[in-house]
Amino acid sequence: MARQINIKRTNSGSFGGNSVRNSVYTIDASSLCAPEAKEVNTVARLGELRKKMAEYNCAVYIIPSEDQHQSEYTAPIDQKRSFISGFSGSAGVAIVTRDVSSLNDVPDGLAALSTDGRYFNQASNELDFNWQLLKQGDKQQPTWEEWAVRQAIQQSLDCGDKVAIGVDPKLITYSFYQKFSATLKKELQKPNNLKAQVEILPVGTNLIDEIWEQFESIPPKVEATITLLDEKYHGRSIKDKLDDVAKAAFVDDVEGIVVSALDEVAWLLNLRGQDIEYNPVFFSFVIYTKSKTIVFVDDSRLSAEIAGALKQNNIEIQPYDSFYSTLSTISKDFSLNNKQFMVPNNANWEIVRNLKCSFTQGLSPVEDLKSIKNKTEIDGAKSAHLKDGRALIKFFAWLEEELIEKTELIDEITADDKLTEFRAQEEDFVGLSFATISATGANGAVIHYKPMKGSCSTIDPSKIYLNDSGSQFLDGTTDTTRTVHFGTPSAEEVRNYTLVLKGNIALATAKFPENTTGNLIDSIARQFLWKHGLDYGHGTSHGIGAYLNVHEGPIGIGPRPSAAANTLKPGHLLSNEPGFYKDGEYGIRIENVMITKDSGLKYNGRSFYEFETITRVPYCRKLIDVNLLTEEEINLINTYHQTIWDELNGSFEKSSYVYKWLRRETAPLTK
Amino acid sequence: MARQINIKRTNSGSFGGNSVRNSVYTIDASSLCAPEAKEVNTVARLGELRKKMAEYNCAVYIIPSEDQHQSEYTAPIDQKRSFISGFSGSAGVAIVTRDVSSLNDVPDGLAALSTDGRYFNQASNELDFNWQLLKQGDKQQPTWEEWAVRQAIQQSLDCGDKVAIGVDPKLITYSFYQKFSATLKKELQKPNNLKAQVEILPVGTNLIDEIWEQFESIPPKVEATITLLDEKYHGRSIKDKLDDVAKAAFVDDVEGIVVSALDEVAWLLNLRGQDIEYNPVFFSFVIYTKSKTIVFVDDSRLSAEIAGALKQNNIEIQPYDSFYSTLSTISKDFSLNNKQFMVPNNANWEIVRNLKCSFTQGLSPVEDLKSIKNKTEIDGAKSAHLKDGRALIKFFAWLEEELIEKTELIDEITADDKLTEFRAQEEDFVGLSFATISATGANGAVIHYKPMKGSCSTIDPSKIYLNDSGSQFLDGTTDTTRTVHFGTPSAEEVRNYTLVLKGNIALATAKFPENTTGNLIDSIARQFLWKHGLDYGHGTSHGIGAYLNVHEGPIGIGPRPSAAANTLKPGHLLSNEPGFYKDGEYGIRIENVMITKDSGLKYNGRSFYEFETITRVPYCRKLIDVNLLTEEEINLINTYHQTIWDELNGSFEKSSYVYKWLRRETAPLTK
Repeated sequence: MARQINIKRTNSGSFGGNSVRNSVYTIDASSLCAPEAKEVNTVARLGELRKKMAEYNCAVYIIPSEDQHQSEYTAPIDQKRSFISGFSGSAGVAIVTRDVSSLNDVPDGLAALSTDGRYFNQASNELDFNWQLLKQGDKQQPTWEEWAVRQAIQQSLDCGDKVAIGVDPKLITYSFYQKFSATLKKELQKPNNLKAQVEILPVGTNLIDEIWEQFESIPPKVEATITLLDEKYHGRSIKDKLDDVAKAAFVDDVEGIVVSALDEVAWLLNLRGQDIEYNPVFFSFVIYTKSKTIVFVDDSRLSAEIAGALKQNNIEIQPYDSFYSTLSTISKDFSLNNKQFMVPNNANWEIVRNLKCSFTQGLSPVEDLKSIKNKTEIDGAKSAHLKDGRALIKFFAWLEEELIEKTELIDEITADDKLTEFRAQEEDFVGLSFATISATGANGAVIHYKPMKGSCSTIDPSKIYLNDSGSQFLDGTTDTTRTVHFGTPSAEEVRNYTLVLKGNIALATAKFPENTTGNLIDSIARQFLWKHGLDYGHGTSHGIGAYLNVHEGPIGIGPRPSAAANTLKPGHLLSNEPGFYKDGEYGIRIENVMITKDSGLKYNGRSFYEFETITRVPYCRKLIDVNLLTEEEINLINTYHQTIWDELNGSFEKSSYVYKWLRRETAPLTK
Repeated sequence: MARQINIKRTNSGSFGGNSVRNSVYTIDASSLCAPEAKEVNTVARLGELRKKMAEYNCAVYIIPSEDQHQSEYTAPIDQKRSFISGFSGSAGVAIVTRDVSSLNDVPDGLAALSTDGRYFNQASNELDFNWQLLKQGDKQQPTWEEWAVRQAIQQSLDCGDKVAIGVDPKLITYSFYQKFSATLKKELQKPNNLKAQVEILPVGTNLIDEIWEQFESIPPKVEATITLLDEKYHGRSIKDKLDDVAKAAFVDDVEGIVVSALDEVAWLLNLRGQDIEYNPVFFSFVIYTKSKTIVFVDDSRLSAEIAGALKQNNIEIQPYDSFYSTLSTISKDFSLNNKQFMVPNNANWEIVRNLKCSFTQGLSPVEDLKSIKNKTEIDGAKSAHLKDGRALIKFFAWLEEELIEKTELIDEITADDKLTEFRAQEEDFVGLSFATISATGANGAVIHYKPMKGSCSTIDPSKIYLNDSGSQFLDGTTDTTRTVHFGTPSAEEVRNYTLVLKGNIALATAKFPENTTGNLIDSIARQFLWKHGLDYGHGTSHGIGAYLNVHEGPIGIGPRPSAAANTLKPGHLLSNEPGFYKDGEYGIRIENVMITKDSGLKYNGRSFYEFETITRVPYCRKLIDVNLLTEEEINLINTYHQTIWDELNGSFEKSSYVYKWLRRETAPLTK
């Protein structure tokens, strides 16, 4: 699979469409196999934008990172924030102000970019002199929402008139709009601001689209192939899924729901696409009411087979672009009949603006149902992880063979390509689930690491090597991190790897009562590192799709509020990825994927749940200090390794180096 | 100390004034040393209340449990909800409706009482046929807020006119009022409710007070002695505390704050009272602005010494009853000068109704500062726990001597009295910090246990005995639970005690980074029970005052959202009390008090914190299975026991049974 634009990131400070994006390590679009990012001079762009802002009476204009589906990963055509700011990182929001009292032809103003800690350095490098950086999480600085609101208030006080904060209402969620309105209200209530008049203005025309072509070609709209997923991969018919959603969503007078997240549409209709790199989704919406189901996707994109399957389920097909107007029409009818729509938290503001009836808000029932894997999906995930495990075992054995036996020079990108080659040999392989993180030594400590072809590092066998990667198979999505050492690790490296491993094992073997959120069990994975004053700056776990996005909501395990919003349930597929990073030296992360199951235990009527690890790659025994492990932990590791050996040794020739490597790595540990 | 009305409870479902009240075990007012609670016939009371409701145009009237200071424990005069409903439990809210279309002289209506799981049985017994029970946490039932709102909406739809939900605005927090308004708004937006007109009406006259005397004497107003605390007990002058609060509260244009929680006033002014049993507080308010400080307390209650101390700090004294009118006057002046007040989250709605200027809301800075103990307070807490430990060691040795050596019959109340006698022998003892829970066998499993004089159980030496109790000393407040066995415990009891103990030790020895909330480390104490499918239905930890309330905010450790609101910091005094309860058989709880400290470790600029246990009572070695403990855990227990031995063995005659008991109980454990 070609290495292309890919973004793996948190939604910290984003618009809240996808609640669980814990992992903060990132491969950035602009720099993989590309020249180093350069500062873009944005004087002319900002000038043109401010002219447009004047046309639309905006004193402040907000440019978010998200597309209208609130996708975590976006297509180039949706990367408007990158265009205007020059900052190519995945997370962040740009805010541009226009001095409404300016007398020049080209109005003055300020520009700010807000991003999180992963991107402070990159943003400083990429932003030109026009931009100030608002560091998320820096308590000395206002949040970007406060900054935007205060700029607007000041403008209003200065000019003595009403001013607007403009935003494309498709690009922020309605729930974010509500929070932003509350921020504005709070600031306006301050005694010194009582005379200010500021409104948040939905600007239907995207002002970046209006000016983009003056500077460069707007990236083309992507319309890749859409395929129908076989029942043996999804395990539940469209009809049954629609019934499940109806049961969850259509209560009291709620008789309609909008599905706008791309992975939700793909799951609901058992279809897959490739409109966004690494994510098997396609641009679409669904409106589902008690009386009809409409999918909004241009029908030229649908094969006869897909059209037939949709027809069979009484699903109407309408053009992608007619979604908002159709919603408006349908909801008018709802209003007349005293019926409500359900608006999921990840729906954009424009959706609500087009709703002509009353509505309830809440977690998307499709997101919720999608996260609970059925037996077919669980079996598929197991199969996918077995195949991916075989590829990873081949890879690590090959890497050791090359580096140690053959003393070859292998760089991070070459290693990555070899791994992809092994993965591609497995059945039903579609592609990678995200851009591989292949990092030697200190590169592994840059959680947001950017290897670059030509300038990437040669893997140093005397240092720790970290590989975080995953596949898309028709039967499942994988995500595995292994940290290995090819020489003699230091005592400190061994201790810290063992502490991370203890956390990984403790979480993998934990039990917990129903109604427990991922917030409440996060410390189980961190407690051993914490005892030594160590930690990792990312979440412990994210949800994973079934041949869908490698990050999915609504659950996760971590300290952030997002992991407190929903409880863990049987069927949830979760990563388990504690780590430790020493700047300038090395990075350690151990990531397995687990299925959440009922343990069979009950107390006071409450069921207890547990996890089953389905990843099939040995831990690095060279990095394990058995003296820091309890007998129970040693037994658990030995059982896990025995399972891997039993399930996979038959895949390799007994005389091969892979077989020997696997035999060695899975042999029982003893104190 | 006489055993009187005392309530130890959560604020689950209450009005949110005190955020951390995790513990759910409770000793209830009505039944300690009193005849069994009886059903009260409330027909006449409800009839009179509905007449009053008609006068004030209320279709629904809400009767909360709290006083105007949002106290966790209340004085008898404030127990209005108990009077109207007959339900004497500490937690709950009563809602009475009046059928506005009723043609009778005595209007019809419904009445509901909402309480939590601890009280379902008691409420069922105490409520008469007029009342329906709304079980908090029961997902089949509406919340009481929804129930109240829906009743009002139905009345409005039925009569085609506007109706009001009345409540005494002094008895709910403003922040609760805001949440309740949002619930009302949400219900009114439902299509079928669009024609309803419902408002939440602040009824200045308390309608229960209006009718109470027709049925029984209103309990007298309590005005007990107020004392000035010596510097050697509080460690920080009034002036310095006022400066600390100013620094925290007076930012930007905020130049005034209201202090309405009784323990906050007591802390701020270094005064103590006894207006509420077990809580060394007195009825009062403080208004603190940049230009003046006023305490609202009737000056006849203040000694010349106290009046002098207040005068020295330029603190004005005004009558308790003039608080709201003075606030109104001062805040008018604020409004003229574009200044704001800070309104803490625990302030009642009436306070906000009397504020004539704009204001900000947030955690009370006084509550926050009070929770961080200074060196004098920490030393005092250690001294208090050493003294209390001596009393508890004497008590457990005495109890064993009586039950086993002398084969005496000792009941739960007699044991409790003896313990209080031992405590009273210690220096600076003022009283108990809450009513002792003294529970044999199955009584220990009733988390909300009510021993009754005459009918309480005789302690069975062949069963587990649980004692949860604490003292108020001038130098500190204590809270200790020990679970012991005088005979031969079963293997199951030993295993479960050991699992609880492992949790207690794991939390006590945990380290965690700054900015960690009590939500995030709760599972550290539960993980061992969870592995066996066991748990406890209460929080793991609450904050503790410095010769103040035994429960204080704003922090705690537990799964509830209240423990997620604020982070743990050095100086916080916290309980550590995991447990396990087997209905009908036994209860296990192990409770120590810990000081939060900086560990000296840092990672990426973040400090790591740790705890220091200051309780000085041995664990029950008979209930410990060393085979379930790691070497590290055994060493930790042995070190703890050695400390107790070293610090306290000199207090006892070498020939005494107490000395021998302590020697035996603190001897090293070995595998």
